[in-house]
Amino acid sequence: ENANQLQSQQESITQKLQETETKNQELETQLVELEQRMESSQVEQEAFRKSLRSLLELLDGKIFELTELRDSLAKLIEGS
Amino acid sequence: ENANQLQSQQESITQKLQETETKNQELETQLVELEQRMESSQVEQEAFRKSLRSLLELLDGKIFELTELRDSLAKLIEGS
Amino acid sequence: ENANQLQSQQESITQKLQETETKNQELETQLVELEQRMESSQVEQEAFRKSLRSLLELLDGKIFELTELRDSLAKLIEGS
Amino acid sequence: ENANQLQSQQESITQKLQETETKNQELETQLVELEQRMESSQVEQEAFRKSLRSLLELLDGKIFELTELRDSLAKLIEGS
Repeated sequence: ENANQLQSQQESITQKLQETETKNQELETQLVELEQRMESSQVEQEAFRKSLRSLLELLDGKIFELTELRDSLAKLIEGS
Repeated sequence: ENANQLQSQQESITQKLQETETKNQELETQLVELEQRMESSQVEQEAFRKSLRSLLELLDGKIFELTELRDSLAKLIEGS
Repeated sequence: ENANQLQSQQESITQKLQETETKNQELETQLVELEQRMESSQVEQEAFRKSLRSLLELLDGKIFELTELRDSLAKLIEGS
Repeated sequence: ENANQLQSQQESITQKLQETETKNQELETQLVELEQRMESSQVEQEAFRKSLRSLLELLDGKIFELTELRDSLAKLIEGS
């Protein structure tokens, strides 16, 4: 009887262990996926920021060219 | 003897179950943290994009004003 | 006879004088008109230049505002 | 006596004629000079206006380029 009880308890614990290990697997999979999404989001963001920096440089160029144009206009007005 | 063996097996499985449950707890904590970081990163990114949209509107305004200035200059050159 | 000759000469010179004085009047009128056109053209040109100076100041303002916008964009890109 | 009087009158008129002709010469010189200044001022003004037109075209180019930059920024903000 005692042996039967132990047997039954052991089966129950073994089943619980299997369930917990399965849950563990799922959590690890979720974690890896989330980490990959996080990383890919960071790569995306860095590319975004890099494109913005290129636009900033273009804007710098345009402001510089407008300033040159402004100087030409000033010279023209005062020069003749 | 058989009973002792079962007893020992059961202890081993019970220990394994506790370890796996602890691991499970850790993974769930990690997952929650990562989800929170992900969410806060998305909130940040959305705020960033919102600020960029404001700058875009400002840029639209400046381009519009430069176009008005351009038209005034054109009228001035041809008008008199 | 001599008196007649003198009389005739005098009439001829008097007529030449009148013609020259008339031409003189015409030239003075032309001169005054040309001076007035010159002056009004200079007034016009000065007004033109003044309008151009106003546009130059507006352009300065726009360049300043574009530079502020550029700085906001730079801070936004690097800041977060 | 009458002849002497006529002679004297004639000399006076002749002198007046010479003065008027000299004045005439001066006026014509002034007129030619003023016409030349007027013409050279018009040539100058036309060159001025031509330079302004070149600046206007440059300004058009800059506004066009700023608009392209604005569109790139808009695509970047919405696109990713």
